[in-house]
Amino acid sequence: MPCQHLVETGMPDIDALWADFARPIANADDYIASLRGRRMNVFFMGERVPEPVDNPVIFPSINAMAETYRLASDHPDVGSVHTPIAGVRINRFLHVPIGPDELVAKHEMQRELGRRTGTCFQRCVGLDAIGACHSVTFDIDAEIGTDYHKRFLGFLKKAQAANVVIGGAMTDPKGDRSKPPHRQSDPDLFLRIVKRDADGIHVSGAKMHQTGAVNSHWLIVMPTMRMTEADKDWSFVGALRVDAPGLTYVVGRQTNDTRGVDGGPLDAGNAQFAGQEALIVFDNVFIPHEHVFMDGEWQYAATLVERFTTYHRSSYVCKTGLGDVLIGAAAEAASHNGVEAVSHIKDKLVEMTHLNETIYSSCMAGAYRAKPMASGAYLNDEMLSNVAKHNVTRFPFEIARLAQDIAGGLVVTMPSEKDLQNNEIGPLIRKFLQGRSGIDTVDRMRVLRLIENMTIGRNAVGYLTESLHGAGSPQAQRIQIARGMAIEDKKARARKLAGIDDRRRSGG
Amino acid sequence: MPCQHLVETGMPDIDALWADFARPIANADDYIASLRGRRMNVFFMGERVPEPVDNPVIFPSINAMAETYRLASDHPDVGSVHTPIAGVRINRFLHVPIGPDELVAKHEMQRELGRRTGTCFQRCVGLDAIGACHSVTFDIDAEIGTDYHKRFLGFLKKAQAANVVIGGAMTDPKGDRSKPPHRQSDPDLFLRIVKRDADGIHVSGAKMHQTGAVNSHWLIVMPTMRMTEADKDWSFVGALRVDAPGLTYVVGRQTNDTRGVDGGPLDAGNAQFAGQEALIVFDNVFIPHEHVFMDGEWQYAATLVERFTTYHRSSYVCKTGLGDVLIGAAAEAASHNGVEAVSHIKDKLVEMTHLNETIYSSCMAGAYRAKPMASGAYLNDEMLSNVAKHNVTRFPFEIARLAQDIAGGLVVTMPSEKDLQNNEIGPLIRKFLQGRSGIDTVDRMRVLRLIENMTIGRNAVGYLTESLHGAGSPQAQRIQIARGMAIEDKKARARKLAGIDDRRRSGG
Amino acid sequence: MPCQHLVETGMPDIDALWADFARPIANADDYIASLRGRRMNVFFMGERVPEPVDNPVIFPSINAMAETYRLASDHPDVGSVHTPIAGVRINRFLHVPIGPDELVAKHEMQRELGRRTGTCFQRCVGLDAIGACHSVTFDIDAEIGTDYHKRFLGFLKKAQAANVVIGGAMTDPKGDRSKPPHRQSDPDLFLRIVKRDADGIHVSGAKMHQTGAVNSHWLIVMPTMRMTEADKDWSFVGALRVDAPGLTYVVGRQTNDTRGVDGGPLDAGNAQFAGQEALIVFDNVFIPHEHVFMDGEWQYAATLVERFTTYHRSSYVCKTGLGDVLIGAAAEAASHNGVEAVSHIKDKLVEMTHLNETIYSSCMAGAYRAKPMASGAYLNDEMLSNVAKHNVTRFPFEIARLAQDIAGGLVVTMPSEKDLQNNEIGPLIRKFLQGRSGIDTVDRMRVLRLIENMTIGRNAVGYLTESLHGAGSPQAQRIQIARGMAIEDKKARARKLAGIDDRRRSGG
Amino acid sequence: MPCQHLVETGMPDIDALWADFARPIANADDYIASLRGRRMNVFFMGERVPEPVDNPVIFPSINAMAETYRLASDHPDVGSVHTPIAGVRINRFLHVPIGPDELVAKHEMQRELGRRTGTCFQRCVGLDAIGACHSVTFDIDAEIGTDYHKRFLGFLKKAQAANVVIGGAMTDPKGDRSKPPHRQSDPDLFLRIVKRDADGIHVSGAKMHQTGAVNSHWLIVMPTMRMTEADKDWSFVGALRVDAPGLTYVVGRQTNDTRGVDGGPLDAGNAQFAGQEALIVFDNVFIPHEHVFMDGEWQYAATLVERFTTYHRSSYVCKTGLGDVLIGAAAEAASHNGVEAVSHIKDKLVEMTHLNETIYSSCMAGAYRAKPMASGAYLNDEMLSNVAKHNVTRFPFEIARLAQDIAGGLVVTMPSEKDLQNNEIGPLIRKFLQGRSGIDTVDRMRVLRLIENMTIGRNAVGYLTESLHGAGSPQAQRIQIARGMAIEDKKARARKLAGIDDRRRSGG
Repeated sequence: MPCQHLVETGMPDIDALWADFARPIANADDYIASLRGRRMNVFFMGERVPEPVDNPVIFPSINAMAETYRLASDHPDVGSVHTPIAGVRINRFLHVPIGPDELVAKHEMQRELGRRTGTCFQRCVGLDAIGACHSVTFDIDAEIGTDYHKRFLGFLKKAQAANVVIGGAMTDPKGDRSKPPHRQSDPDLFLRIVKRDADGIHVSGAKMHQTGAVNSHWLIVMPTMRMTEADKDWSFVGALRVDAPGLTYVVGRQTNDTRGVDGGPLDAGNAQFAGQEALIVFDNVFIPHEHVFMDGEWQYAATLVERFTTYHRSSYVCKTGLGDVLIGAAAEAASHNGVEAVSHIKDKLVEMTHLNETIYSSCMAGAYRAKPMASGAYLNDEMLSNVAKHNVTRFPFEIARLAQDIAGGLVVTMPSEKDLQNNEIGPLIRKFLQGRSGIDTVDRMRVLRLIENMTIGRNAVGYLTESLHGAGSPQAQRIQIARGMAIEDKKARARKLAGIDDRRRSGG
Repeated sequence: MPCQHLVETGMPDIDALWADFARPIANADDYIASLRGRRMNVFFMGERVPEPVDNPVIFPSINAMAETYRLASDHPDVGSVHTPIAGVRINRFLHVPIGPDELVAKHEMQRELGRRTGTCFQRCVGLDAIGACHSVTFDIDAEIGTDYHKRFLGFLKKAQAANVVIGGAMTDPKGDRSKPPHRQSDPDLFLRIVKRDADGIHVSGAKMHQTGAVNSHWLIVMPTMRMTEADKDWSFVGALRVDAPGLTYVVGRQTNDTRGVDGGPLDAGNAQFAGQEALIVFDNVFIPHEHVFMDGEWQYAATLVERFTTYHRSSYVCKTGLGDVLIGAAAEAASHNGVEAVSHIKDKLVEMTHLNETIYSSCMAGAYRAKPMASGAYLNDEMLSNVAKHNVTRFPFEIARLAQDIAGGLVVTMPSEKDLQNNEIGPLIRKFLQGRSGIDTVDRMRVLRLIENMTIGRNAVGYLTESLHGAGSPQAQRIQIARGMAIEDKKARARKLAGIDDRRRSGG
Repeated sequence: MPCQHLVETGMPDIDALWADFARPIANADDYIASLRGRRMNVFFMGERVPEPVDNPVIFPSINAMAETYRLASDHPDVGSVHTPIAGVRINRFLHVPIGPDELVAKHEMQRELGRRTGTCFQRCVGLDAIGACHSVTFDIDAEIGTDYHKRFLGFLKKAQAANVVIGGAMTDPKGDRSKPPHRQSDPDLFLRIVKRDADGIHVSGAKMHQTGAVNSHWLIVMPTMRMTEADKDWSFVGALRVDAPGLTYVVGRQTNDTRGVDGGPLDAGNAQFAGQEALIVFDNVFIPHEHVFMDGEWQYAATLVERFTTYHRSSYVCKTGLGDVLIGAAAEAASHNGVEAVSHIKDKLVEMTHLNETIYSSCMAGAYRAKPMASGAYLNDEMLSNVAKHNVTRFPFEIARLAQDIAGGLVVTMPSEKDLQNNEIGPLIRKFLQGRSGIDTVDRMRVLRLIENMTIGRNAVGYLTESLHGAGSPQAQRIQIARGMAIEDKKARARKLAGIDDRRRSGG
Repeated sequence: MPCQHLVETGMPDIDALWADFARPIANADDYIASLRGRRMNVFFMGERVPEPVDNPVIFPSINAMAETYRLASDHPDVGSVHTPIAGVRINRFLHVPIGPDELVAKHEMQRELGRRTGTCFQRCVGLDAIGACHSVTFDIDAEIGTDYHKRFLGFLKKAQAANVVIGGAMTDPKGDRSKPPHRQSDPDLFLRIVKRDADGIHVSGAKMHQTGAVNSHWLIVMPTMRMTEADKDWSFVGALRVDAPGLTYVVGRQTNDTRGVDGGPLDAGNAQFAGQEALIVFDNVFIPHEHVFMDGEWQYAATLVERFTTYHRSSYVCKTGLGDVLIGAAAEAASHNGVEAVSHIKDKLVEMTHLNETIYSSCMAGAYRAKPMASGAYLNDEMLSNVAKHNVTRFPFEIARLAQDIAGGLVVTMPSEKDLQNNEIGPLIRKFLQGRSGIDTVDRMRVLRLIENMTIGRNAVGYLTESLHGAGSPQAQRIQIARGMAIEDKKARARKLAGIDDRRRSGG
């Protein structure tokens, strides 16, 4: 599905851009096939990746994304939804939520995908970008008479019909964090419009650690923070194909990313699924007007960011699905060791569950308390969404620690699958790594490798570090909590109970 | 409103029992008036309390209960609700919730009352007893053909019409905790039926630390735990007037309970509101059949307890209302000290809010996810309700610690209000306890006393210790979390991702 | 032992000031006797206290102080030490430590006194003031040729010989915390010299929440923070008799301070021992030059404060003695309930012990690592002393929470001792509050009251809130930790391991 | 230095065993050279490793061990000590501590080596094995007249003279953890004596995850737990050469172990240093009597384990050296981002330091409080050593979380060093990953890679997971804390303060 047309003429029309997607993606296999044959500049570990689908390090991330299609096929009630926009049933990852129940259903889907993949399935950023753009474009149009919302709906309808993966691209390099875009020594440190012409805009710069970027079909680029009037050229939103001319991708290294290659599926721990983050560099990339949803309206950048992060912080409910897997793995490891019924082991499993369900409840409460915006889209409760994400920055670390506690030191000292295959030492390992009677030693090793994978291996990247920084670092949530905490009302309540309102009478 | 009839004849009919409540309680003043003139055996600090309403230590607890009437008057949308049972609008504390939205509304009411009183307003136990009895009586009838549900609805309709306070009485003395009721050396250590006759049952024993007991009109007594067949005489539910012959109340001491008496309103910290717990002793107390809702069906004791605690653990959302007050008080104290804008102070206020809202979200999520039972009543999600309460056993302690941190040591070293009134030292205190310019020194003292009240004073009883033990101690929640955590499903998820399902093919 | 001479002449000589102490205090009874008959202006709850020893609320604090004498009598190895200054054996609370072993012994004494009293025994502030003054006066003299150290030694020798209690007074009211003394709207908000004359200085102002003030014989007043040149009149150190003319004391209210009075020893929980804090107001109080140890040398105020707090933060090791008592009380309560062997109970006792010993080890490590100062006195390691105190601001709160968890709700709902004495309800309480077989119900109540006393009662003031604020609030420790954390060295270590030192060769 | 003699004759004499070590190891280079040319059966990732020194994955662990020699050369005061056994100055890792000060010095050395390597330098197990064997052999001899202590001293003198690395081998596979050795279905699941003859013993079985095994010269094998009489054949201690016939080593996989190979030094994060754990399989391995220090005295197994773990748990003070590096790395990363002065960043650095120094103080306090045993060796305070290690199972996880919080998401999404070297994308990475002005982008990457290395990379194995399980998992410490917590004394203290001792008089 190469973006050939663009390359040749340099100036696409919209229909041409969508021509490759005429036949909607029907299922997971179809999705994987759709990624083949694109001419993208993708690099990993210093080398161009000619076909990411065939790269064994990248493929598990594609497969995790594919699970979003599988779920929609297997459980359409969970993974798909009817949209009034196109009037058809679509993958829920392309849906603008129009009621609390739809946000609840979204979060259930995310937890289930966490359970199915044990990693980041990468499709939430785009989903939450859709949600945020829907209402913000509506608001801009309503206030200053633009037609962004119409453009956006046009784009979204096509994307829904084609059942494509939309990636959301927000985080800029930012350079010196004490300076706004227009005062950076290098203006490219925030993605910016370098040229406007009759057909659209041309943008340069970069977006950092973009989730699932290489596995997407389209990207929505958005500003990363509050802007000022002088930052107009950095204040825009647009959608573009991931294979648009001028884009370069550098896939980041993850902990143990090569385990499946240098070791094998056992060493990988979770051989089927992984996440993906990439640096995307934009070199004079063209976006036609039809795909531009904000162009210089710097006043709306903060609103867009806040709505996006409110959606996205609650999307971290997915980590409770990973938590389910890790709790199960710890229990399984304890069972292999014959200690599942020991009181301190049971108590640790309860603690892990308690923390996991606390995260879940804060995410879900924010969904149930969603409020409608002018566009009709519903937004999670902002305070609770921040509280939810803030718990995500803490509890998975403790859950992971407890999982390692239960599993034992073998998690980090175990021989390789290749040792198992060696005639001389394979039998020794099978002999000495056996657990309680009746347990297959290799199964025991598999579970321990899964725990390694999620606590200090490849998917710990998503379960732990991404839990800290994705959708905003801890301090970002604290700032939002401070804004929303209605401290003056709380103080008034306290003064009343302290008897201060009565002071003129009582005389103190 | 003395229970005169009962005293004289010894054998009431139901109408007589309700005769005193013919005129419904219209508002808070009416409620307070309704408590006067009852012939109850109430003791406090070694002395009979002739009229609890006039006892200055007890009155703040009555006033907190009265706030449930005030709220219904001031904000009927919050404090009252239409009931299909009687077909009228009633106080929400007498309502059986028949949808998630009603549990949500209940929790909002509870948080608001927490904000208004800064203490335990004592009416939730009865409310949650109503909820639990509604469905359990329905189930017993359905399974074994009794008519408990009809009796219960008859009782409830009268209570709703009269707008009375129903207390719930569950916790027995329990004696040797390793033994069931029928094996206790003293059979009275669990409340029990000592005689059954044509009119009803006669019960003896005690209930421990009963919330708001003296401030109620009726009590529902319930078993405290799972029973066995040999415990049939301890397995019953009944409703009785708090002034029934044979009842004795001993009001427990609370931290700083006498502050308002020996000091004054300033020393009390929160002079208007407090909680109440009492020991209730039952000496051959009669309950007519019409008010008996379980009589020997020991198999349902566990179900009743579980449903009650599921309701009641979520009711601890009220503590987030207390949290609001305490956060506000800490912010006010910081403002008086001129340090509200200091970064570590702001950060602590954010942390307090984060913890408070985490409790809130776990309570609310469990309400939104309520499920209907056969009787039509809705019950909070059991896992989330336990998770919510478990957070309540932790976070208020940290919120209180942070409040004291912000407020400073004066919280526990401050002179008395009586010192302020002393001509010699009053001026010295006003001079040396002044905060930043423009702050009334006495107001500063009031806020600090409120913080004392909630963290190491009278209402710390409710905010901290009751948060540990009310509705079940921490370990009780852990047991329920263990039961609900679906560990086998979690293990299966882990095995699948670890590749164990594939082992026959891969050969390990 | 009235300060008669001073009252009459208005201008004492040093010998007259010490005349009352000619006969050294021999033991605890002698100490208590020594407090009688002084003409001090002491107020409590709005009334003048004619004889504090006879005041039942104040006496437990005197008795806790007396325990420092009892320990020296019972265990001279723990409670006393040989001093090279006077060449005799003295109470350790009057000793300047001249080796790490002496700081270790001091801390062992403090923990033991914590175990013996379950409260603040109030004599450490003076002890640590002695330590700080010894070295700072030496340094001032060495640098600017004053004779403060000689004066100080003269004072100390007399105090050691007389075996008196020295209180340390540091904390000023401070008013607007953003302003130094000389910029306060009211100059008295920091204690200051209002007049200097040939004989000495005259000081006015106040010191806040002074530990054991009324129970002391002498006070050492010290500046509370770093001073500037404009604050010279606020930069002084001096020793004065607690019954000096011009002093007024207002004893602060503590949680449950009147329990022993309105309830009885059982209700008090710990009837024998309590702490004490008072506001001291100074009205033109005279200090003769011989007792002035700093007079305007503002440059040394910060040093004095830092040394004092370094000593004093480690002195919070006493709280581990309280922790021992509370752990024991929780275990005893569990035993009474018949659940001491239950796994979660045992686990909580272990956790409490772990936290308690963590505090202990951080205090002790700082003592062992003490370094000598120019005067020969040894000072605890500053970093570890701050770390120790910072742990004290956290762990006692968790220990207290766990104690309440183990003890159960009865801690805050139990009837009064007076109820026990009531003929009608006393037997009922004995019947229904019984624990496992063989346990005296009243003993069970006593232990629960002790837990109340230490977690939400009178001695929770010392165990919890004072643990936060005494010797500096948490943020004060964080500032000192930041100063001492040698971050540049740590960064250099990191750069080296990251390979940054090699960058010129490797080319990066 | 091949073990040629042994291979040929099959029956060594002691002199022959030591012949290869006639020339003492002089320094780090000498040490590394000493590892070459040995005929050991070492496997890694399914392949025999002909020369571990030349294996790029293994070498960093050798280099970390070599740092113990470098330190002794560079700072003999820290890394070496005079021994009365041989009467000469030796590497401190071969020294039996004979005073608290020597344990203190040992811990300072360990922290310094942690700072120098940022990983596990692997020589402490052997050191602590020496300490434990010294006293236990003494005690056995004293009680039952054996000559183990003399044998042990003979061995130790040679080892000290040769300056070799001694590894300690304790952890057996253990199979079904609910069964003692003699009841295992496979007797080899604990290392055991399979034959005794005139010259010595022959042992078979395995030891799991042995630290630095391949990098050692000698191993001391010890029982792993309390034994019973039926376990006599599993109850022995012996020293053997790591190249003894019959030994096989399987080096375990570590997180990111291949980073230096597939990426390069930048990707490795800490290219110079790493830890090592191996499975050691014993197939009928001979140990001559002269090197057997316990042979069937099962009663002493528990004592040996307890003394070893008491030493070894305090040895985890090394992690504070790693903590220093990680705190420094976080501060450096913050500096690169231009946010080092931001209040929440500073506060997190303080918190990391506070936790790190808390660990340090609990380790050090236990050293200072060491007590002598009959042999003259000093042993750390047991309670504090367990408390110290227990803190190590918690705080490094929080320190690591905070380091990642400060460092930002780039820690886990950064491109490879090979990308930097690519002409096309290298310049893009340098452009877009730049931090604040003046910072070399590659240096910034290096620091972030170091943080990855220590928190979710190769050395996180040692800093986090090993901190949980090394020297005993958390529950092992809790058991020891429970044993040492003197709960009866604590209960007695509580009873006394509660007034229970007075009950006969007061009448309760």
